Amino acid sequence: MKHMAKSLSNLQRRFIALRSNKLFEFVVIGVILLSALIIGARTYDLHPRWQFFLKFMDVGVTVFFLAEISVRMAAEKRIRDFFKQGWNVFDFLIVTASLVPLEESQTVLVARLLRVFRVLRLVSIVPELRILLNALIKAIPRMGYVAVLMFIIFYIYGAIGSLFFEHVNPILWGDIAISMLTLFRIVTFEDWTDIMYETMAVHRFSWVYYLTFIFFTAFVFLNMMIGIVLDVMQTEHEEYNREQGAGEAGEVHWVKEHTAQIESRLERMEEKLDRLGRHSGPGN
Amino acid sequence: MKHMAKSLSNLQRRFIALRSNKLFEFVVIGVILLSALIIGARTYDLHPRWQFFLKFMDVGVTVFFLAEISVRMAAEKRIRDFFKQGWNVFDFLIVTASLVPLEESQTVLVARLLRVFRVLRLVSIVPELRILLNALIKAIPRMGYVAVLMFIIFYIYGAIGSLFFEHVNPILWGDIAISMLTLFRIVTFEDWTDIMYETMAVHRFSWVYYLTFIFFTAFVFLNMMIGIVLDVMQTEHEEYNREQGAGEAGEVHWVKEHTAQIESRLERMEEKLDRLGRHSGPGN
Amino acid sequence: MKHMAKSLSNLQRRFIALRSNKLFEFVVIGVILLSALIIGARTYDLHPRWQFFLKFMDVGVTVFFLAEISVRMAAEKRIRDFFKQGWNVFDFLIVTASLVPLEESQTVLVARLLRVFRVLRLVSIVPELRILLNALIKAIPRMGYVAVLMFIIFYIYGAIGSLFFEHVNPILWGDIAISMLTLFRIVTFEDWTDIMYETMAVHRFSWVYYLTFIFFTAFVFLNMMIGIVLDVMQTEHEEYNREQGAGEAGEVHWVKEHTAQIESRLERMEEKLDRLGRHSGPGN
Amino acid sequence: MKHMAKSLSNLQRRFIALRSNKLFEFVVIGVILLSALIIGARTYDLHPRWQFFLKFMDVGVTVFFLAEISVRMAAEKRIRDFFKQGWNVFDFLIVTASLVPLEESQTVLVARLLRVFRVLRLVSIVPELRILLNALIKAIPRMGYVAVLMFIIFYIYGAIGSLFFEHVNPILWGDIAISMLTLFRIVTFEDWTDIMYETMAVHRFSWVYYLTFIFFTAFVFLNMMIGIVLDVMQTEHEEYNREQGAGEAGEVHWVKEHTAQIESRLERMEEKLDRLGRHSGPGN
Repeated sequence: MKHMAKSLSNLQRRFIALRSNKLFEFVVIGVILLSALIIGARTYDLHPRWQFFLKFMDVGVTVFFLAEISVRMAAEKRIRDFFKQGWNVFDFLIVTASLVPLEESQTVLVARLLRVFRVLRLVSIVPELRILLNALIKAIPRMGYVAVLMFIIFYIYGAIGSLFFEHVNPILWGDIAISMLTLFRIVTFEDWTDIMYETMAVHRFSWVYYLTFIFFTAFVFLNMMIGIVLDVMQTEHEEYNREQGAGEAGEVHWVKEHTAQIESRLERMEEKLDRLGRHSGPGN
Repeated sequence: MKHMAKSLSNLQRRFIALRSNKLFEFVVIGVILLSALIIGARTYDLHPRWQFFLKFMDVGVTVFFLAEISVRMAAEKRIRDFFKQGWNVFDFLIVTASLVPLEESQTVLVARLLRVFRVLRLVSIVPELRILLNALIKAIPRMGYVAVLMFIIFYIYGAIGSLFFEHVNPILWGDIAISMLTLFRIVTFEDWTDIMYETMAVHRFSWVYYLTFIFFTAFVFLNMMIGIVLDVMQTEHEEYNREQGAGEAGEVHWVKEHTAQIESRLERMEEKLDRLGRHSGPGN
Repeated sequence: MKHMAKSLSNLQRRFIALRSNKLFEFVVIGVILLSALIIGARTYDLHPRWQFFLKFMDVGVTVFFLAEISVRMAAEKRIRDFFKQGWNVFDFLIVTASLVPLEESQTVLVARLLRVFRVLRLVSIVPELRILLNALIKAIPRMGYVAVLMFIIFYIYGAIGSLFFEHVNPILWGDIAISMLTLFRIVTFEDWTDIMYETMAVHRFSWVYYLTFIFFTAFVFLNMMIGIVLDVMQTEHEEYNREQGAGEAGEVHWVKEHTAQIESRLERMEEKLDRLGRHSGPGN
Repeated sequence: MKHMAKSLSNLQRRFIALRSNKLFEFVVIGVILLSALIIGARTYDLHPRWQFFLKFMDVGVTVFFLAEISVRMAAEKRIRDFFKQGWNVFDFLIVTASLVPLEESQTVLVARLLRVFRVLRLVSIVPELRILLNALIKAIPRMGYVAVLMFIIFYIYGAIGSLFFEHVNPILWGDIAISMLTLFRIVTFEDWTDIMYETMAVHRFSWVYYLTFIFFTAFVFLNMMIGIVLDVMQTEHEEYNREQGAGEAGEVHWVKEHTAQIESRLERMEEKLDRLGRHSGPGN
């Protein structure tokens, strides 16, 4: 029993060593890239022999991923610790998702779809990409209320469009959902004048609707950009102050306080000198 | 009489309490969202029973909005105070606009249009959106003269386009207004080469017209962007100085002046020391 | 003779007063706007009576502009001084250009074209627009070499496109000039995939040509933007230093030098104190 | 033998003088521009006599370039030194590439293609363009990982698109490579709604695919922009500190340390003054 516990802890130590091994990391990245190549290759019409080979490879990749995630789970003291890190949960879901047995005609697509997401493991394993993605996620709240404002503009214009233009072209303006999709198309400038000319044939002044919509969305977007630049600059300034600027400002403050002390000390010293002069001067 | 006045003031106190109640605010936001959903739902072709239900709900929302705005007006000391705030006027107009009795066949559209603007009340009631919109409104003057310059470019090119290309395609270049709409289309790059190839078949060098127009508008727009960035940075710098930088600069100035005082004091002290040395030195 | 000279100088004084009169400026702006309206109105198909009225108004505007520019010329001491200012030359050219007698069938267009440019006088007379345009002109050199680089990219890709794709579609790739126009169309993303699919049917790997071109131009453009932002920031920093920061840096330098002087003075004073202590100490 | 070595070194001195001659540089730039004009002119359908003249000119340009690069190689002490500079290698490859004898029907195109790249010599010879290009090349790593992230998004969406939409339109979604090209088209907003409507006819909710793709790519791109602005600002700050700000911060630090020394010295001096006062005071 004791021997077995010892060999287990021995195994765990090897797993920890393996996990932090640079070569192991490169092998994992290589297998992820291989998995991406398999996913890409399967979109081509291939000879059945190649298809069989790809399926075989795919099983191999699945087994490797299972082994790798098992090693990383075994390297933790408790399995709970493994799930405490967001990226681990992310990896676990991607790896286990492709294990669900789906073999019916329709669900084969879903099974292959789940394999596609394995490419995302590249993001979780390459530190630079992880940092980049974390930075992207941090930028989301900053865009929150602007997105709400954009949605309100889309909703109001969608309702108006559906109200006035439904009889012109129900395919584009049938209900509020379709209208909002049409408006998104207008925002991307994709054949938007065709839509405008169509409604202008019925409602002569409908160009007001399109031009105001484009100006409002462009204006809000432009201001969002400004907001982001401002935000970035504020962050930059704060960091700059914390790192180095605050150092200078702090030193200046230190100098100021000590200059005040020096001054009061000098005042005392001058008084003493004066007294000394009065005593020794006439006394001589 | 006195009793009645007292009960009135009692009622007003309750209204003030209600107005600043957090729960009341959430209920109002909920009703605005419900009103938005009703507006959206009515764009779909629904069963008459559902349509009746939506109309019933719509009346309910109208009544609630009236009650809510009455409470907020009653909570003010004088009704005049209520109208002093821009957002209150905005709310009042939106709520009362949907009360105007319009039931003729054509004006039903207008009545429904006025209901659509109720969604805008979301902006006036959610403080974060109100701040965002105020910031957007502040950005307008900054873009004023650039807009005038843009309009001059559009007007000149519109007049030239209408002058030279009217006989090529009167639908696109019939008069100056239509020409300016066509130019806006060219600015969005929407099938602009089709228009250019059409006029190039008649006027061989008309590509000069299109390319210069695109360059001028793009150039002015780009510079507007730079202007905004500059403006944002200036605002940032000023704020930075006011908050903290000015503190440092002020302290440096304080240190400078006091260093000068210390110096002159030390000069005096050295002179006194010298005199003391001369007196006491030989005297001993 | 002397009387006449005196009355002339009297007239000139009145002209100077008129030129700097605020009301006169507003009248000139009003006439420019009227001239713009006439130009716009003439692009519509109007009743002959209205057309006659517009022609009459046009003559009136021409006469007014001549009178106005004569006043401004007469207000100068020497006519040469008038032409020393760029905006005056600009005004003079615009006003006199519409005087050239052109009445043949074809040249009528040119005569009307020259009248269109009168709208530009708005830029020369409104100070805010003049400042804005001067700022835009200042930004030109900053974009110079980037434009040269862009032109080189266009020229090389134009030559390659004309070399390889001429037999695919001579309308789009006939010679280097047409190819460069086609490339400008690709940069604006206007139906660029239609062009690509057409050449890909003949040259299978021609997508490399299009994608590299889009990446190069986008990359150079993006870096131009960065360059401008950097430039703007540098200008900003320099201005900031000149106005206020340099003040701080200068004061710090002043403090440093005087601190050094204080130190050497204190060293001397301590020595003197020591000597005084040695003399007076044992002497007592 | 000695005489010959002397005349050789004499020749080399002349070559060095020639290389740094401003006039020589202008002549080279002129010949490059001439070469560019020849390349451009040959894309037009010209009279055989002109074509012969252009071929003759082309040979002349080739000979001149060979002579020029020989002079620059001869001006170096060792030929190895010539190839140590990247721009020299670049020039050498461009000049020699057009010497490879290709006269078969198909390879004539390649020979003309190699001549096109001679225009790039403009970049290597004009210093301002060289600086600009160096700056562009420096910007590449900064965009590296963002490009990888973009590629992952394209790859995943390409695989999904090819998986679900292949049967809808194999021309657009046939395999992962074609799908990624289609996705690039969607990113440029080129007729993207046509593609979306086509797939929405089969898969009703496929708009989710398109909208999420556009949002993800736009979001990553926007953040790349922010990242670049941040990067630019950091570089700016560092430079600012190195050049002048660090000077200020350094001086402040110097002042701080010396203020501390002054203080301790003053403490000593006050003690000495006190001792002096005690000795001389009662002693009188």
